[in-house]
Amino acid sequence: MDDPVLLTGAGGRVGQAILSRLADEYDWRLLDREPIPEERRHGVPESASFVADVTDDAAVADAVAGCGAVIHLAGDPRPDAPWDSVLANNIDGTQTVFSAAVDAGVEKVAFASSNHAVGAYETDERTPEMYRADDDYRLDGEELPRPSNLYGVSKASGETLGRYYHDHADLDVVCVRIGNLTEGHPPREYERGQAMWLSHRDCAHLFDRCLAADYGYEIVYGISDNDRKYYSIERAKEVLGYDPQDNSAEYTFEGEPKNDPATE
Amino acid sequence: MDDPVLLTGAGGRVGQAILSRLADEYDWRLLDREPIPEERRHGVPESASFVADVTDDAAVADAVAGCGAVIHLAGDPRPDAPWDSVLANNIDGTQTVFSAAVDAGVEKVAFASSNHAVGAYETDERTPEMYRADDDYRLDGEELPRPSNLYGVSKASGETLGRYYHDHADLDVVCVRIGNLTEGHPPREYERGQAMWLSHRDCAHLFDRCLAADYGYEIVYGISDNDRKYYSIERAKEVLGYDPQDNSAEYTFEGEPKNDPATE
Repeated sequence: MDDPVLLTGAGGRVGQAILSRLADEYDWRLLDREPIPEERRHGVPESASFVADVTDDAAVADAVAGCGAVIHLAGDPRPDAPWDSVLANNIDGTQTVFSAAVDAGVEKVAFASSNHAVGAYETDERTPEMYRADDDYRLDGEELPRPSNLYGVSKASGETLGRYYHDHADLDVVCVRIGNLTEGHPPREYERGQAMWLSHRDCAHLFDRCLAADYGYEIVYGISDNDRKYYSIERAKEVLGYDPQDNSAEYTFEGEPKNDPATE
Repeated sequence: MDDPVLLTGAGGRVGQAILSRLADEYDWRLLDREPIPEERRHGVPESASFVADVTDDAAVADAVAGCGAVIHLAGDPRPDAPWDSVLANNIDGTQTVFSAAVDAGVEKVAFASSNHAVGAYETDERTPEMYRADDDYRLDGEELPRPSNLYGVSKASGETLGRYYHDHADLDVVCVRIGNLTEGHPPREYERGQAMWLSHRDCAHLFDRCLAADYGYEIVYGISDNDRKYYSIERAKEVLGYDPQDNSAEYTFEGEPKNDPATE
């Protein structure tokens, strides 16, 4: 990708995992609701940094002009976010970004979806066994959404918006259902978090592949190659060339496991 | 269903198809954005008729209080409706209705989804053959959405909201992807419309079954038993006891067929 790449939500957790490792690989444009301090721009000049809300049509159009790709992370990231916030920031904001990307002639958009789009597959009958290495239950991205919360509803809606813009505007779209992103090591004492752990380096590599690979419309799971996984990463490997380096099983922690999705 | 049933969008096309045939079968409460004239209330007293927008939390809560079920039809019905309208009326409005239904202790909600939630499966490669009786391509409700338009995106979002409220509040939800509802006879010179025709009597019967049957969460197709169909009605038959009486093949029309979804 030689053209500039717009990273929305660049100042947030996922944005920083990507930007801190890929700052020199692309001609970045950053967008965030708050000004991004210099140490979080990782060398990207302030002149390529836009302070705007993703629901602001004109500001998003300005930021995306001339870009070849978008990584769209911006939105309310709270699993317990109230409806009005996810309606505006996540659903309306994602429509704004897809629409502006199409108008600007962008080739591809990687959209940050979430494990919460499918969290209700973790039924009482399946848990906690499904979080364990010897359990072979898998979600592969072809299943219908079963959100954990209204935040998850908003992410599923974003995936459907991506499908629409792919079908109607020939935009390449990959939706990444991001697991549990933590820096340095997997969540401690949290089987569910270890099952869906995404290390920072695997996160950066996965979005790097989203910018480099050729695809049409895809829903993939964004997790490391964890022994405990119940999300298939086969599609990400096959279509994107994802080659994760981490596995939460390589870390051992003492203590009782917890499996409350609210602690993610 | 002995408790009252709230019918949102009661003055609209689908509402009238239902109410004109089932007025005496339930204790109806009607809700519409515009006052419903007497001849369209089909004997339901004005005192059971609410004039309110479905995005008005308090008004919807008032209308649904004491109800045992809801048929939720209200929303912007235009396939070419702009984003801001479907975001407010269809997505936010549907969230308001589901949330109010749960708060009121409603048992079941039948949600009017649309063929436009999956219209982009009608690809250039598949059409017009898929609209014909000798073609065996079928959608069955387990496929991911592929909307025709932003209206279809909004309907898919409503289905996902229903999934969320079913999983988290034990609300029974059936999403009916309504085909092409016309009175008297199928669309003329329109193969696609004949494939997804829903007669008025089959429509009323289908929603009657949605109120009478037991289910958890379902997505079904709402069409008559058309020879030309590419939507499976097996799930509606099996789970709801749907027994359609009509088939567009029983009507013959002269003229060249058209297959433009915009004419629906």
